[in-house]
Amino acid sequence: MAMKLHGDPMSACVARVMLCLHEKDAEFELVPVNLFSCEHKQPPFLSKNPFGQVPVLEDEDLTLFESRAITAYIAEKCKETGTDLTRRRNPKEEAAVRVWSEVEAHHFNPAIAAVIHQLVVVPLHGKSPDTAVVEENIDRLGKILDVYEERLEKSEYLGGDFYSLADLHHVPYTHYFMKTEFASLINDRPRVKAWWHDLSSRPAYLKVAPGMSIDPKL
Amino acid sequence: MAMKLHGDPMSACVARVMLCLHEKDAEFELVPVNLFSCEHKQPPFLSKNPFGQVPVLEDEDLTLFESRAITAYIAEKCKETGTDLTRRRNPKEEAAVRVWSEVEAHHFNPAIAAVIHQLVVVPLHGKSPDTAVVEENIDRLGKILDVYEERLEKSEYLGGDFYSLADLHHVPYTHYFMKTEFASLINDRPRVKAWWHDLSSRPAYLKVAPGMSIDPKL
Repeated sequence: MAMKLHGDPMSACVARVMLCLHEKDAEFELVPVNLFSCEHKQPPFLSKNPFGQVPVLEDEDLTLFESRAITAYIAEKCKETGTDLTRRRNPKEEAAVRVWSEVEAHHFNPAIAAVIHQLVVVPLHGKSPDTAVVEENIDRLGKILDVYEERLEKSEYLGGDFYSLADLHHVPYTHYFMKTEFASLINDRPRVKAWWHDLSSRPAYLKVAPGMSIDPKL
Repeated sequence: MAMKLHGDPMSACVARVMLCLHEKDAEFELVPVNLFSCEHKQPPFLSKNPFGQVPVLEDEDLTLFESRAITAYIAEKCKETGTDLTRRRNPKEEAAVRVWSEVEAHHFNPAIAAVIHQLVVVPLHGKSPDTAVVEENIDRLGKILDVYEERLEKSEYLGGDFYSLADLHHVPYTHYFMKTEFASLINDRPRVKAWWHDLSSRPAYLKVAPGMSIDPKL
Protein backbone atom coordinates (compact mmCIF):
# COMPACT_ATOMS: atom_id res chain seq x y z
CA MET A 1 0.00 0.00 0.00
CA ALA A 2 1.38 3.41 -0.97
CA MET A 3 2.24 5.85 1.79
CA LYS A 4 -0.31 8.63 2.37
CA LEU A 5 0.93 12.18 2.72
CA HIS A 6 -1.60 14.56 4.26
CA GLY A 7 -1.10 18.21 3.33
CA ASP A 8 -0.82 20.74 0.54
CA PRO A 9 2.41 21.41 -1.36
CA MET A 10 1.99 25.16 -0.85
CA SER A 11 3.12 24.43 2.74
CA ALA A 12 6.92 24.47 2.83
CA CYS A 13 6.98 21.52 5.24
CA VAL A 14 4.76 19.41 2.98
CA ALA A 15 6.86 20.33 -0.07
CA ARG A 16 9.97 19.25 1.89
CA VAL A 17 8.54 15.75 2.27
CA MET A 18 7.34 15.61 -1.36
CA LEU A 19 10.85 16.48 -2.56
CA CYS A 20 12.19 13.60 -0.49
CA LEU A 21 9.58 11.15 -1.82
CA HIS A 22 10.48 12.07 -5.41
CA GLU A 23 14.23 11.84 -4.72
CA LYS A 24 13.60 8.28 -3.47
CA ASP A 25 11.26 7.37 -6.36
CA ALA A 26 8.68 6.44 -3.72
CA GLU A 27 5.03 5.95 -4.54
CA PHE A 28 2.66 8.01 -2.42
CA GLU A 29 -0.85 9.34 -2.35
CA LEU A 30 -1.31 13.04 -1.55
CA VAL A 31 -4.36 13.51 0.68
CA PRO A 32 -5.37 17.19 0.48
CA VAL A 33 -5.81 19.16 3.71
CA ASN A 34 -7.62 22.47 3.36
CA LEU A 35 -5.39 24.91 5.22
CA PHE A 36 -7.64 27.90 4.50
CA SER A 37 -10.59 26.29 6.28
CA CYS A 38 -8.20 25.23 9.10
CA GLU A 39 -8.90 21.55 8.56
CA HIS A 40 -5.55 20.84 10.27
CA LYS A 41 -6.74 22.47 13.50
CA GLN A 42 -9.85 20.29 13.82
CA PRO A 43 -10.40 16.94 15.57
CA PRO A 44 -10.12 14.42 12.72
CA PHE A 45 -6.72 15.82 11.75
CA LEU A 46 -5.62 16.47 15.37
CA SER A 47 -5.86 12.73 16.04
CA LYS A 48 -3.03 12.31 13.51
CA ASN A 49 -0.94 15.26 14.73
CA PRO A 50 -1.84 16.79 18.12
CA PHE A 51 0.07 19.95 17.17
CA GLY A 52 -2.32 20.60 14.27
CA GLN A 53 0.29 20.99 11.55
CA VAL A 54 0.86 19.52 8.11
CA PRO A 55 2.40 17.26 6.91
CA VAL A 56 1.38 13.92 8.34
CA LEU A 57 2.65 10.71 6.76
CA GLU A 58 0.76 7.44 7.14
CA ASP A 59 2.52 4.21 6.26
CA GLU A 60 0.15 1.35 7.07
CA ASP A 61 -0.22 1.46 10.89
CA LEU A 62 2.47 4.10 11.40
CA THR A 63 1.53 7.78 11.65
CA LEU A 64 4.32 10.36 11.63
CA PHE A 65 4.49 14.14 11.82
CA GLU A 66 7.28 16.76 11.77
CA SER A 67 8.64 17.07 8.22
CA ARG A 68 12.31 16.40 9.08
CA ALA A 69 11.42 13.24 11.00
CA ILE A 70 9.37 12.09 8.01
CA THR A 71 12.18 12.71 5.49
CA ALA A 72 14.58 10.69 7.67
CA TYR A 73 12.05 7.84 7.83
CA ILE A 74 11.49 7.83 4.06
CA ALA A 75 15.24 7.98 3.37
CA GLU A 76 15.75 4.85 5.47
CA LYS A 77 12.62 2.98 4.34
CA CYS A 78 13.52 3.53 0.68
CA LYS A 79 17.26 3.08 1.11
CA GLU A 80 17.55 0.84 -1.95
CA THR A 81 16.11 3.36 -4.42
CA GLY A 82 16.85 6.90 -5.56
CA THR A 83 19.36 9.32 -4.07
CA ASP A 84 21.24 8.36 -0.89
CA LEU A 85 20.10 11.26 1.30
CA THR A 86 21.52 10.25 4.71
CA ARG A 87 24.89 8.52 3.95
CA ARG A 88 24.38 5.96 6.69
CA ARG A 89 27.07 3.69 5.28
CA ASN A 90 29.71 6.28 6.17
CA PRO A 91 29.48 7.51 9.79
CA LYS A 92 31.53 10.66 9.11
CA GLU A 93 29.43 11.63 6.10
CA GLU A 94 26.27 10.85 8.04
CA ALA A 95 27.47 13.07 10.89
CA ALA A 96 28.13 15.96 8.47
CA VAL A 97 24.63 15.56 7.01
CA ARG A 98 23.24 15.77 10.56
CA VAL A 99 25.29 18.86 11.44
CA TRP A 100 24.11 20.82 8.40
CA SER A 101 20.54 19.55 8.76
CA GLU A 102 20.61 20.99 12.29
CA VAL A 103 22.04 24.25 10.96
CA GLU A 104 19.06 24.44 8.59
CA ALA A 105 16.63 23.73 11.42
CA HIS A 106 18.08 26.05 14.04
CA HIS A 107 19.70 28.89 12.07
CA PHE A 108 18.44 29.13 8.48
CA ASN A 109 14.80 28.12 8.98
CA PRO A 110 13.86 30.50 11.82
CA ALA A 111 15.28 33.48 9.89
CA ILE A 112 13.90 32.69 6.43
CA ALA A 113 10.52 31.50 7.74
CA ALA A 114 10.09 34.83 9.57
CA VAL A 115 10.82 36.73 6.35
CA ILE A 116 8.45 34.63 4.25
CA HIS A 117 5.74 34.93 6.88
CA GLN A 118 5.97 38.72 6.79
CA LEU A 119 6.33 39.12 3.02
CA VAL A 120 4.05 36.36 1.74
CA VAL A 121 1.60 35.25 4.45
CA VAL A 122 0.82 38.52 6.26
CA PRO A 123 -0.25 40.37 3.05
CA LEU A 124 -2.66 37.50 2.27
CA HIS A 125 -4.51 38.51 5.43
CA GLY A 126 -4.71 42.11 4.20
CA LYS A 127 -2.06 43.36 6.62
CA SER A 128 1.29 45.08 6.12
CA PRO A 129 4.56 43.30 6.85
CA ASP A 130 6.41 44.32 10.03
CA THR A 131 9.50 45.89 8.45
CA ALA A 132 11.54 45.66 11.67
CA VAL A 133 11.02 41.88 11.75
CA VAL A 134 11.95 41.62 8.06
CA GLU A 135 15.13 43.69 8.50
CA GLU A 136 16.26 41.82 11.60
CA ASN A 137 15.84 38.45 9.91
CA ILE A 138 17.37 39.54 6.59
CA ASP A 139 20.40 40.60 8.61
CA ARG A 140 20.54 37.21 10.39
CA LEU A 141 20.07 35.38 7.10
CA GLY A 142 22.90 37.30 5.46
CA LYS A 143 25.30 36.23 8.21
CA ILE A 144 24.18 32.61 7.92
CA LEU A 145 24.66 32.69 4.14
CA ASP A 146 28.18 34.05 4.67
CA VAL A 147 28.94 30.84 6.57
CA TYR A 148 27.35 28.82 3.75
CA GLU A 149 29.48 30.63 1.14
CA GLU A 150 32.60 29.62 3.07
CA ARG A 151 31.37 26.07 3.54
CA LEU A 152 30.57 25.70 -0.17
CA GLU A 153 34.18 26.61 -0.99
CA LYS A 154 35.17 23.35 0.69
CA SER A 155 32.49 21.03 -0.65
CA GLU A 156 29.94 21.00 -3.44
CA TYR A 157 27.00 20.59 -1.06
CA LEU A 158 26.55 21.37 2.62
CA GLY A 159 27.17 17.85 3.96
CA GLY A 160 30.04 17.13 1.53
CA ASP A 161 30.43 16.37 -2.17
CA PHE A 162 27.00 14.75 -2.32
CA TYR A 163 23.40 16.00 -2.27
CA SER A 164 21.65 15.05 0.98
CA LEU A 165 18.80 15.92 3.34
CA ALA A 166 21.02 18.77 4.58
CA ASP A 167 20.50 20.49 1.22
CA LEU A 168 16.98 19.25 0.49
CA HIS A 169 15.54 20.68 3.71
CA HIS A 170 16.48 24.19 2.53
CA VAL A 171 14.61 24.03 -0.76
CA PRO A 172 10.98 25.00 -0.02
CA TYR A 173 11.61 28.25 1.86
CA THR A 174 14.38 29.24 -0.56
CA HIS A 175 11.90 28.68 -3.42
CA TYR A 176 9.58 31.32 -1.91
CA PHE A 177 12.47 33.57 -0.91
CA MET A 178 13.76 33.75 -4.50
CA LYS A 179 10.48 35.41 -5.49
CA THR A 180 11.02 38.29 -3.04
CA GLU A 181 12.99 41.51 -3.41
CA PHE A 182 15.74 39.96 -1.25
CA ALA A 183 16.76 37.22 -3.73
CA SER A 184 20.08 39.07 -4.10
CA LEU A 185 21.10 37.58 -0.72
CA ILE A 186 21.45 34.31 -2.61
CA ASN A 187 22.52 35.69 -5.99
CA ASP A 188 25.28 37.95 -4.63
CA ARG A 189 27.14 35.00 -3.11
CA PRO A 190 28.61 33.03 -6.04
CA ARG A 191 28.84 29.63 -4.36
CA VAL A 192 25.45 29.92 -2.68
CA LYS A 193 23.99 31.01 -6.03
CA ALA A 194 25.51 28.00 -7.81
CA TRP A 195 24.28 25.70 -5.02
CA TRP A 196 20.74 27.03 -5.35
CA HIS A 197 20.92 26.71 -9.15
CA ASP A 198 21.89 23.06 -8.69
CA LEU A 199 19.17 22.38 -6.09
CA SER A 200 16.48 24.03 -8.20
CA SER A 201 17.47 22.07 -11.33
CA ARG A 202 16.91 18.64 -9.82
CA PRO A 203 14.04 16.56 -11.29
CA ALA A 204 12.38 16.24 -7.86
CA TYR A 205 12.25 20.04 -7.54
CA LEU A 206 10.81 20.43 -11.02
CA LYS A 207 8.02 18.04 -10.05
CA VAL A 208 7.14 19.78 -6.76
CA ALA A 209 7.70 23.46 -7.66
CA PRO A 210 4.47 23.96 -9.67
CA GLY A 211 2.42 23.21 -6.52
CA MET A 212 4.47 25.60 -4.40
CA SER A 213 2.54 28.79 -4.81
CA ILE A 214 0.48 30.30 -2.09
CA ASP A 215 -3.07 30.67 -3.29
CA PRO A 216 -4.22 34.28 -2.93
CA LYS A 217 -7.89 33.26 -2.85
CA LEU A 218 -8.36 33.32 0.92
CA MET B 1 42.04 8.76 21.82
CA ALA B 2 39.10 10.03 23.85
CA MET B 3 36.66 12.41 22.21
CA LYS B 4 37.08 16.07 23.15
CA LEU B 5 34.00 18.07 24.09
CA HIS B 6 34.52 21.83 24.00
CA GLY B 7 32.18 23.80 26.23
CA ASP B 8 30.89 24.36 29.74
CA PRO B 9 28.12 22.23 31.31
CA MET B 10 26.28 25.38 32.40
CA SER B 11 25.28 25.64 28.71
CA ALA B 12 22.16 23.57 28.13
CA CYS B 13 23.46 22.39 24.76
CA VAL B 14 26.77 21.21 26.24
CA ALA B 15 24.95 19.47 29.11
CA ARG B 16 22.76 17.72 26.48
CA VAL B 17 25.86 16.16 24.92
CA MET B 18 27.38 15.27 28.31
CA LEU B 19 24.19 13.43 29.28
CA CYS B 20 24.47 11.43 26.06
CA LEU B 21 28.16 10.62 26.63
CA HIS B 22 27.38 9.33 30.14
CA GLU B 23 24.36 7.31 28.93
CA LYS B 24 26.73 5.62 26.45
CA ASP B 25 29.53 5.12 29.04
CA ALA B 26 31.80 6.96 26.59
CA GLU B 27 35.16 8.35 27.62
CA PHE B 28 35.65 12.02 26.85
CA GLU B 29 37.73 15.01 27.78
CA LEU B 30 35.89 18.25 28.60
CA VAL B 31 37.83 21.21 27.18
CA PRO B 32 36.59 24.35 28.98
CA VAL B 33 35.41 27.31 26.89
CA ASN B 34 35.05 30.58 28.80
CA LEU B 35 31.61 31.83 27.80
CA PHE B 36 31.85 34.97 29.97
CA SER B 37 34.92 36.20 28.09
CA CYS B 38 33.21 35.22 24.78
CA GLU B 39 35.95 32.75 23.89
CA HIS B 40 33.40 31.03 21.61
CA LYS B 41 33.02 34.19 19.50
CA GLN B 42 36.75 34.49 18.73
CA PRO B 43 38.85 33.09 15.89
CA PRO B 44 40.42 29.97 17.42
CA PHE B 45 36.98 28.66 18.39
CA LEU B 46 35.25 29.98 15.23
CA SER B 47 37.46 27.67 13.15
CA LYS B 48 35.73 24.75 14.90
CA ASN B 49 32.20 26.18 14.70
CA PRO B 50 31.63 29.16 12.38
CA PHE B 51 28.39 29.97 14.24
CA GLY B 52 30.36 30.63 17.46
CA GLN B 53 28.37 28.33 19.72
CA VAL B 54 29.19 25.57 22.17
CA PRO B 55 29.38 22.59 22.13
CA VAL B 56 31.91 21.33 19.63
CA LEU B 57 32.92 17.67 19.61
CA GLU B 58 36.25 16.53 18.20
CA ASP B 59 36.76 12.86 17.47
CA GLU B 60 40.20 12.48 15.91
CA ASP B 61 39.94 14.31 12.55
CA LEU B 62 36.18 14.88 12.79
CA THR B 63 34.82 18.17 14.15
CA LEU B 64 31.10 18.43 14.85
CA PHE B 65 28.79 21.14 16.17
CA GLU B 66 25.03 21.42 16.89
CA SER B 67 24.23 19.45 20.03
CA ARG B 68 21.52 17.24 18.51
CA ALA B 69 23.79 16.22 15.61
CA ILE B 70 26.48 15.36 18.15
CA THR B 71 24.19 13.20 20.30
CA ALA B 72 23.09 11.27 17.19
CA TYR B 73 26.75 10.71 16.24
CA ILE B 74 27.70 9.51 19.73
CA ALA B 75 24.66 7.22 19.91
CA GLU B 76 25.75 5.51 16.69
CA LYS B 77 29.50 5.50 17.38
CA CYS B 78 28.94 3.91 20.79
CA LYS B 79 26.09 1.62 19.74
CA GLU B 80 27.54 -1.39 21.58
CA THR B 81 27.61 0.29 25.01
CA GLY B 82 25.15 1.94 27.38
CA THR B 83 21.55 2.86 26.66
CA ASP B 84 20.13 2.38 23.13
CA LEU B 85 19.13 5.98 22.47
CA THR B 86 18.09 5.83 18.79
CA ARG B 87 16.45 2.36 18.32
CA ARG B 88 17.94 1.91 14.87
CA ARG B 89 17.23 -1.79 14.89
CA ASN B 90 13.49 -1.09 14.77
CA PRO B 91 12.49 1.40 12.03
CA LYS B 92 9.13 2.23 13.63
CA GLU B 93 10.69 2.90 17.02
CA GLU B 94 13.45 4.91 15.38
CA ALA B 95 10.84 6.98 13.53
CA ALA B 96 8.98 7.70 16.78
CA VAL B 97 12.24 8.81 18.42
CA ARG B 98 12.78 11.18 15.46
CA VAL B 99 9.25 12.59 15.64
CA TRP B 100 9.50 13.45 19.34
CA SER B 101 13.07 14.71 18.98
CA GLU B 102 11.75 17.12 16.35
CA VAL B 103 8.91 18.12 18.68
CA GLU B 104 11.53 18.99 21.29
CA ALA B 105 13.56 20.98 18.77
CA HIS B 106 10.69 22.90 17.13
CA HIS B 107 8.03 23.23 19.84
CA PHE B 108 9.41 22.66 23.35
CA ASN B 109 12.87 24.20 22.98
CA PRO B 110 11.91 27.60 21.50
CA ALA B 111 9.32 28.16 24.26
CA ILE B 112 11.35 26.97 27.25
CA ALA B 113 14.60 28.56 26.04
CA ALA B 114 12.84 31.93 25.77
CA VAL B 115 11.57 31.59 29.36
CA ILE B 116 14.97 30.58 30.74
CA HIS B 117 16.66 33.39 28.83
CA GLN B 118 14.34 35.95 30.42
CA LEU B 119 14.31 34.52 33.94
CA VAL B 120 17.90 33.32 34.29
CA VAL B 121 20.18 35.00 31.72
CA VAL B 122 18.70 38.52 31.49
CA PRO B 123 18.95 39.17 35.29
CA LEU B 124 22.64 38.17 35.16
CA HIS B 125 23.15 41.23 32.95
CA GLY B 126 21.46 43.44 35.54
CA LYS B 127 18.26 43.80 33.52
CA SER B 128 14.62 42.91 34.22
CA PRO B 129 12.88 40.07 32.40
CA ASP B 130 10.38 41.02 29.70
CA THR B 131 7.19 39.77 31.34
CA ALA B 132 5.24 39.75 28.05
CA VAL B 133 7.79 37.35 26.51
CA VAL B 134 7.68 35.17 29.63
CA GLU B 135 3.85 35.03 29.65
CA GLU B 136 3.58 34.29 25.94
CA ASN B 137 6.04 31.42 26.16
CA ILE B 138 4.64 30.00 29.40
CA ASP B 139 1.29 29.86 27.62
CA ARG B 140 2.86 28.06 24.61
CA LEU B 141 4.73 25.69 26.91
CA GLY B 142 1.55 24.80 28.80
CA LYS B 143 -0.16 23.78 25.57
CA ILE B 144 2.84 21.70 24.51
CA LEU B 145 2.91 19.96 27.90
CA ASP B 146 -0.81 19.16 27.51
CA VAL B 147 0.15 17.18 24.40
CA TYR B 148 2.97 15.50 26.35
CA GLU B 149 0.56 14.55 29.15
CA GLU B 150 -1.67 12.83 26.60
CA ARG B 151 1.28 11.15 24.89
CA LEU B 152 2.64 9.85 28.21
CA GLU B 153 -0.71 8.13 28.85
CA LYS B 154 0.10 5.89 25.90
CA SER B 155 3.78 5.20 26.52
CA GLU B 156 6.23 5.51 29.38
CA TYR B 157 8.55 7.83 27.44
CA LEU B 158 7.97 10.14 24.47
CA GLY B 159 9.30 7.79 21.78
CA GLY B 160 7.70 4.65 23.29
CA ASP B 161 8.28 2.42 26.29
CA PHE B 162 12.01 3.14 26.23
CA TYR B 163 14.23 6.07 27.17
CA SER B 164 15.76 7.71 24.07
CA LEU B 165 17.27 10.90 22.67
CA ALA B 166 13.69 12.19 22.39
CA ASP B 167 13.58 12.38 26.19
CA LEU B 168 17.25 13.18 26.82
CA HIS B 169 17.18 16.33 24.68
CA HIS B 170 14.58 17.84 27.03
CA VAL B 171 16.63 17.45 30.19
CA PRO B 172 18.93 20.52 30.38
CA TYR B 173 16.33 23.24 29.93
CA THR B 174 13.83 21.42 32.13
CA HIS B 175 16.55 21.25 34.82
CA TYR B 176 16.74 25.08 34.82
CA PHE B 177 12.99 25.47 34.44
CA MET B 178 12.32 23.43 37.61
CA LYS B 179 14.19 26.07 39.61
CA THR B 180 11.78 28.81 38.47
CA GLU B 181 8.40 29.87 39.83
CA PHE B 182 6.76 28.07 36.90
CA ALA B 183 7.82 24.52 37.92
CA SER B 184 4.12 23.84 38.55
CA LEU B 185 3.68 23.54 34.75
CA ILE B 186 5.51 20.22 35.10
CA ASN B 187 4.31 19.26 38.58
CA ASP B 188 0.59 19.87 37.90
CA ARG B 189 0.54 17.31 35.08
CA PRO B 190 0.85 13.88 36.75
CA ARG B 191 2.37 11.99 33.82
CA VAL B 192 4.74 14.79 32.86
CA LYS B 193 5.75 15.04 36.53
CA ALA B 194 6.47 11.30 36.73
CA TRP B 195 8.39 11.47 33.44
CA TRP B 196 10.57 14.28 34.76
CA HIS B 197 11.10 12.43 38.04
CA ASP B 198 12.32 9.45 36.02
CA LEU B 199 14.57 11.54 33.76
CA SER B 200 16.10 13.40 36.68
CA SER B 201 16.82 10.19 38.61
CA ARG B 202 19.03 8.64 35.94
CA PRO B 203 22.73 8.17 36.81
CA ALA B 204 23.79 10.28 33.78
CA TYR B 205 21.71 13.21 35.05
CA LEU B 206 23.13 12.89 38.55
CA LYS B 207 26.63 13.15 37.08
CA VAL B 208 25.92 16.21 34.91
CA ALA B 209 23.49 18.19 37.13
CA PRO B 210 26.11 19.56 39.58
CA GLY B 211 27.77 21.47 36.70
CA MET B 212 24.47 22.85 35.47
CA SER B 213 24.29 26.07 37.40
CA ILE B 214 24.72 29.45 35.81
CA ASP B 215 27.55 31.23 37.55
CA PRO B 216 26.36 34.63 38.79
CA LYS B 217 29.94 36.00 38.87
CA LEU B 218 29.87 37.83 35.54
